[in-house]
Amino acid sequence: MRIITLLTDFGHADPFVGIMKGVILGINPRAQIVDLCHGVSPQDVLEAAFLLDCSYQYFPKGTVHLVVVDPGVGGMRKGLVAEGRHGYYVAPDNGVLSYLFASGEIRRVVEITAEAYLLHPVSQTFHGRDVFAPVAGHLSRRSGIDRFGQATARSVRLRLPVPAKRGSRVLVGSILHVDRFGNLITNISGRQISALHPERGITVSIRGQTMRGLQQSYDRLKPGETGAILGSAGYLEIFANQRSAARLLKAGRGAAVRVEARGRRRRR
Amino acid sequence: MRIITLLTDFGHADPFVGIMKGVILGINPRAQIVDLCHGVSPQDVLEAAFLLDCSYQYFPKGTVHLVVVDPGVGGMRKGLVAEGRHGYYVAPDNGVLSYLFASGEIRRVVEITAEAYLLHPVSQTFHGRDVFAPVAGHLSRRSGIDRFGQATARSVRLRLPVPAKRGSRVLVGSILHVDRFGNLITNISGRQISALHPERGITVSIRGQTMRGLQQSYDRLKPGETGAILGSAGYLEIFANQRSAARLLKAGRGAAVRVEARGRRRRR
Amino acid sequence: MRIITLLTDFGHADPFVGIMKGVILGINPRAQIVDLCHGVSPQDVLEAAFLLDCSYQYFPKGTVHLVVVDPGVGGMRKGLVAEGRHGYYVAPDNGVLSYLFASGEIRRVVEITAEAYLLHPVSQTFHGRDVFAPVAGHLSRRSGIDRFGQATARSVRLRLPVPAKRGSRVLVGSILHVDRFGNLITNISGRQISALHPERGITVSIRGQTMRGLQQSYDRLKPGETGAILGSAGYLEIFANQRSAARLLKAGRGAAVRVEARGRRRRR
Repeated sequence: MRIITLLTDFGHADPFVGIMKGVILGINPRAQIVDLCHGVSPQDVLEAAFLLDCSYQYFPKGTVHLVVVDPGVGGMRKGLVAEGRHGYYVAPDNGVLSYLFASGEIRRVVEITAEAYLLHPVSQTFHGRDVFAPVAGHLSRRSGIDRFGQATARSVRLRLPVPAKRGSRVLVGSILHVDRFGNLITNISGRQISALHPERGITVSIRGQTMRGLQQSYDRLKPGETGAILGSAGYLEIFANQRSAARLLKAGRGAAVRVEARGRRRRR
Repeated sequence: MRIITLLTDFGHADPFVGIMKGVILGINPRAQIVDLCHGVSPQDVLEAAFLLDCSYQYFPKGTVHLVVVDPGVGGMRKGLVAEGRHGYYVAPDNGVLSYLFASGEIRRVVEITAEAYLLHPVSQTFHGRDVFAPVAGHLSRRSGIDRFGQATARSVRLRLPVPAKRGSRVLVGSILHVDRFGNLITNISGRQISALHPERGITVSIRGQTMRGLQQSYDRLKPGETGAILGSAGYLEIFANQRSAARLLKAGRGAAVRVEARGRRRRR
Repeated sequence: MRIITLLTDFGHADPFVGIMKGVILGINPRAQIVDLCHGVSPQDVLEAAFLLDCSYQYFPKGTVHLVVVDPGVGGMRKGLVAEGRHGYYVAPDNGVLSYLFASGEIRRVVEITAEAYLLHPVSQTFHGRDVFAPVAGHLSRRSGIDRFGQATARSVRLRLPVPAKRGSRVLVGSILHVDRFGNLITNISGRQISALHPERGITVSIRGQTMRGLQQSYDRLKPGETGAILGSAGYLEIFANQRSAARLLKAGRGAAVRVEARGRRRRR
């Protein structure tokens, strides 16, 4: 019994996700299908790439991750199957696997061309149903990605938003994702903060507001107070205890975040 | 292991769907339950009927489709179990199976009367839990619909919105569904367009805007440009590349859509 | 094969729920995971407690219910595993099991301290992934809660909002939950109404509007008309046929509801 996860921007108002599951179960009745997330902002490939990177490690080895955030459906973009150290990935070739390429997770990539594995006639608007779900279903029955097409080394990679260094003690990053609670997840990792050697702590600034230090838990602050914390995916997060930091700070995806390490006390 | 799909207007803010799954698994622990869609507009029987028609073919034969969009719950409306060429259907008798009757999918219908299969006491407001889920659970264990009640030929059928023909080259249809991306799905099928003999292409008009031809993919147009395409369920769709056509055109469910076949070039 | 249900305030815009499922399946590949509901209002422990109480009886005996509504994550609050007459419960110690304590469902409670069952390093912000999902996964493989920590009798209980009696014929309660359809679910049970001895029926008042009697079904009223009915969880509900009572009455969570039993006819 193999797990297949689904990560899409299909939302929950349509039967798109349900139909994909029907196709998968028609191919592999024993597949264990898990909804990873269907709330990716429409056509937001970078957001999906980030959410996938935060998630895949928590699934058993060999899990097949099916990603359908696909603004180029029906056009010239290719379809991919990738074999990673930890899992398998089936996705359009639009950069949605970029974080996995960057981290070294992905080892081999094949471009989907084998018509025998697709649902015919292939539609112009729903390759999740006609291309990616069938390939994931077949892959969950039997490992090995080569039967789906030719190996390729030229797949699309997004330019990932990395924090900029300003001198030895300052990083300027940005908000990558706003979660359901209004927490603002940045692209600044705990490791990058440590590299600033913050012996006397840090300050975090966003939208003209500056917060001191990293909190140990949300509830260390009073309800509605904003602070910074190391989030569950290893990235710096801005939060407001029991409130939405996004709303309080009027900040969203792309907003700039500045981290400054406080130096040793200067002698006068 | 039999698949049971769930199609409801219950949304995701309440445990209604979860409770139905508990009831089903109590009856058949081996049922494979798939959420088809829970985002049907509240009490919108016609929308549910359309979404079911777009979906059932993609599930394995013998799948049980459980539909609970049920404004008449607790009143005089009956409950149905239907046997189709492809699947089984459990639903209130309010027209939600109308497309399946119209296409010939459904072969036999039984009115649910056998009290032994229901959850007692049957509530006045949640037959999804007390009537339809138990019946679907039992049906998934053993085929045969006759044990649930008497055969009936008088079930409710909705008047389905069909496009009107205006002369030999014009069809006037309407928007049946707006999907998550703001794509406007019409009730005009690809076959109906072909029957206009559009040797020189078609024009599609909605809300005073006219689009020429059918696109091969969304991304043939510039971002934000509107166009028409043959959608994945076989119906004409109006879209805007990477934007919401519903918002751009201020069009929603019920809006009129006009398709005109361009004739042969006239000789002057 | 054991069922694990998930009840959270995680919504559907993030992969939180999917990640928890990955962790569970890594521990017990045969677990049958059911989404009970992820639409609890953010950090609303009382709402989650109420929804759990309305739901657990509909799952097979021995089901593991995992509840993650957890404003105190990463702080001083403890984690619990509880054994009940009907099911098992894994949750933060913040009162989310209060209804189950009040009804006598819960028999024994253990405070989670056994590090061996957790996912390390335990994050400061996502104990659903690092504490509660792993414990639920292990519990679904083998019964017995004592291996997770020490028994405790001092877990947090919320003060549950109970209706106030005003004389022998009047109850004043409040709205506990607004469902997807805008139905207003009160904290007044059918049993409490019966105890008023309403030989000549009742009147129900909310927001200056008074309704007479209990309806037998929604559709006994005209579309848009408001009425009262005994809901599927055994509580009095205010509804509007085919409309949202919440919107029509401008009433929400916490609004006061007055039930008055009409006495015997007085002799003049």
